[in-house]
Order: sequence, then C-alpha cells, then structure tokens
Amino acid sequence: MQKLVVVKKMKVLVFFVAIVLAAWHCHGSDHDHDHGHTYQIFPLRMKTGHGGHYIPEVSCQSWRLGVEAHNVIDWKTVPQDCEGYIGNYMLGEQYRSDSKIVNQQAYFYAKTLNITAKTAWVFDIDETTLSNLPYYADHGFGVELYNETSFNKWVDLGEAPALPESLKLYKKLLSLGIKIVFITGRPLDQKAVTATNLKLAGYHTWEKLITKNTSEYHGKTAVTYKSTERKKLEEKGYKIIGNIGDQWSDLLGTNTGDRTFKLPDPMYYIS
Amino acid sequence: MQKLVVVKKMKVLVFFVAIVLAAWHCHGSDHDHDHGHTYQIFPLRMKTGHGGHYIPEVSCQSWRLGVEAHNVIDWKTVPQDCEGYIGNYMLGEQYRSDSKIVNQQAYFYAKTLNITAKTAWVFDIDETTLSNLPYYADHGFGVELYNETSFNKWVDLGEAPALPESLKLYKKLLSLGIKIVFITGRPLDQKAVTATNLKLAGYHTWEKLITKNTSEYHGKTAVTYKSTERKKLEEKGYKIIGNIGDQWSDLLGTNTGDRTFKLPDPMYYIS
Repeated sequence: MQKLVVVKKMKVLVFFVAIVLAAWHCHGSDHDHDHGHTYQIFPLRMKTGHGGHYIPEVSCQSWRLGVEAHNVIDWKTVPQDCEGYIGNYMLGEQYRSDSKIVNQQAYFYAKTLNITAKTAWVFDIDETTLSNLPYYADHGFGVELYNETSFNKWVDLGEAPALPESLKLYKKLLSLGIKIVFITGRPLDQKAVTATNLKLAGYHTWEKLITKNTSEYHGKTAVTYKSTERKKLEEKGYKIIGNIGDQWSDLLGTNTGDRTFKLPDPMYYIS
Repeated sequence: MQKLVVVKKMKVLVFFVAIVLAAWHCHGSDHDHDHGHTYQIFPLRMKTGHGGHYIPEVSCQSWRLGVEAHNVIDWKTVPQDCEGYIGNYMLGEQYRSDSKIVNQQAYFYAKTLNITAKTAWVFDIDETTLSNLPYYADHGFGVELYNETSFNKWVDLGEAPALPESLKLYKKLLSLGIKIVFITGRPLDQKAVTATNLKLAGYHTWEKLITKNTSEYHGKTAVTYKSTERKKLEEKGYKIIGNIGDQWSDLLGTNTGDRTFKLPDPMYYIS
C-alpha cells in the first residue's frame, strides 16, 4: 500500500513537471504585438493531428470542454481513448483549479446581494458537495458503464470526502446568512447515510436535504425532478439566488435560481 | 514580413513540442486500475500553485473553462496574466480542435432530424462563421479594451476568414436542406460588406442575413435583440432546430432553437 502511494505520487510529479514544462514553453512563446497582418500563420488552416498523428491530449481536452459547455450531451461513458487523460485531469491540479474558479465566481456574486431569512442557495451533492473520486478512480474514471449496485455500495460507506473548493463556498455562504438546500438524485433510503457523510466531510448545517422520492419521480429526468423540487421551495417562500451543480440537469429546467454555476465533471452525464 | 512569419512559425512549433511533451508524459503516467483505495494521493487536498508558485497555464485554462461554461460572465477584458496563454490557445491546435467537436456534435444532431422547407438553423457571425483572429492577434487577444472604431475599420475591410469547422457544418446543413439564417450584432450599415465577406469566405447561400437595427435595439442587450429576431423568424413559420454562436447571449433568452451549440471564444464577452 505504501509503495503504491509512492509510485502514484511519482506519477503525479511527472505529470506536473510536464505541465510546468508546457507552461514554461508557452510563456517563452508569448506573441509579439506587431501591427502587421499575420494571416500566414493562422492555424485556422491546420488540421487536427499533425501529420495524421492522433493527439489524445488535444482531442480529449476538446471533448471535456464540449461536455462542460453542454455541447456534448447524452453520453454514456468517457471515450476509451480519454481514460488516461481524464484520470490525469481528475487527479491533477487542473480539476481543483477549475472547481476553484467556479466557486470563487459564485462567492463574488453572492456577496453583492441582499440576504433575507428566506434567501436560499441550492447545492447538488455528488461531484458538487461530496466527491466520489475514490470510487471512480477504481472504475476507470467514467470509462466503465455506470454500475448502480457497486456505486451504491460506495455511497453506503458514507466516506466520500468534501470537494474542498465547494466546502469553502458553503462556509462563506453560511456566514453571509444564506440558507443551504441540498437537492440530490440520491434516493430516500440513502438520506441517513448522506446526512452522516455530509457532517463527516465538514458540512454541518443545512435548511433542507432533499432526496429523490423514487416512486414520485419514477421515469422522470433529473431536470424534471430538480425543477419540481425547486418550485416547491419557491412556493414555500424561499428565494433561490444561486444554484450549483456538476450536471447541466442540475441547472436547466424551471425555477433554476437567479444564477447557476456549473462545476466540472467529465466522468458521467445525467439527463 | 517574411522573417516575422518564420519567427511566429518557430514559436508555434515550440508550443506544439511542449504540448506533445506534455501529452507524452501524461500518456506515460496513465493510472493503474488497482482496486485498493488510494485516498492518500487525492490532490483534492493539494493547493493550487505548488509551493506558492503561480502557474498561469493552469489558472488561465480554468478561467477559459469558466467562460465557456458560463460561470465567468460580464468580463470586459482577458486577464492581463492570461494574454500569452490565450494567444497560444487561439493560434494553436486546441482552439481548432475545440471548434471542431462543437460543429461535429451539431452535425450528428442535425442529421437525425426531419427537415422541411421551413427548417432553419441560426448562425451568429463573428467568431462563429467568420474569424476576427487577424484583428485580435494585433490587439492583445482580448487583453485590450474593445475599441469600436478600430474594430469597425477591420470589419469594413471585408476580409475576415471563415472558421473552417463552422464552414464545414454550414455546407453539411445546406446539403441536408436546412435553411441558414445569420443573426449578427453587426449594424445595418455593415450588412453589405458582411454579405461580401461571407461570400469571399465560402458562405455563398443563406435564407436571411439579419443585422441589428441600432435604433430599434438601442440600449438593449444582445440576448433581447437576438431573442426578438428569432421570435420574428418563428412567427414567419420557420422552425429553428439549431442555433450556434460563440457567445452565451446568442443562445440564451427565448426562442433559442431546439438545441444550442456554444463555440469557444475566450477573447471577449457580449451580454
């Protein structure tokens, strides 16, 4: 076990050296601001993959961007060729940095607003509040088809860590006096373990923890379920000023909240 | 001029070597799929910027992702620190690849649909159909504040190149029998030069080219202008099955079309 950790640490180190190298080269190649025309060099005319070589780094990054900007939708698994890329992304600096900027923007926005006793912020749970990365690291980072049985076993352990940047946002929103409402696709029979897990991970207070009534929403999409639950909240007098999730289905539909924030998640897609 | 081109080509080459190096290292560090737990290495606990070092590559990439996923909004200019990163991105392989996947997804979607004589697809123009990269390369890739006078001078030249992946989509949609409607924020007095430029760039046919009536939409946002024009289209019997643009303001609002596609653009933001 100890040896494995050392090997993985070394791998992560190699990866960072590569990133730093890339960053350094990039830095060295900053463009001059000459004011002549430079049409000749525009790679608009280049083809992806020089000399026909397939560069997974480039095309998997495009796939990931496509997912985040909601252009690539309804996918079942991460493309096989992107397993290494997505694994490195999830374990590396970039995922944390990408999460950080989203949470920062959310806070910059929240702190400008008037807060009342009924001001609410909606958090999704999986890959938003809690991280299932320990599970997905053992299951191909989304390359393997989703296995409900094995995923539920992981959830029932109740030991998912907090996403650290989301935890920071959560604490800041609480300190602004905003009420936190969790709306998760997890079913009612996982509510207790989820509550315990949230506390273990550092999320100690919330206004509501809404789990999915699987008979009420049987066959309905996450968009419908979450929209309906947000509508119920608003009917109870809450004003949803913000809504954060890792899936577009957390953020689309009706009663979405005044502003939405999309956290990165290239491992799975929920419609 | 010739020398400049060679220097820029070398810079681009250095950049690609760095990318390939990074890709190669990444590839070399693909994760094992051991089935033990590996909590110890989760960089969830790491801080952005090792040892306090600022890595523009990582944080500028996060900023760009934040822009594309509509988390970073209402910004005036590219962060100063990201000029080199954004310049390299726009001139490099990644921008082309990112554009390609969006247009591909759009085509995969379009070809599954029933097409009638009134089936329409909306294209934005700047950074969607035509590229202003030759202009922005001379103006700090978005680091400089937008200068209407100098940008209009560039537009009036009428020599913006096509975005090659968008041009491919355009041709494929035409061949499916879909009507193309351009809706641009460019004003009426640039309609003629825009039409000429479109043809020069390879866009030869369209159903409508809608420019902005600046008195009708004075003080209105792009979201309002574009929503209103799409509504007019639908009132004329068109069915908008797709809508592609580089700004979220092309895609949000009402009458957005059955599905929207967000092309990359980290150089400017239009609300």
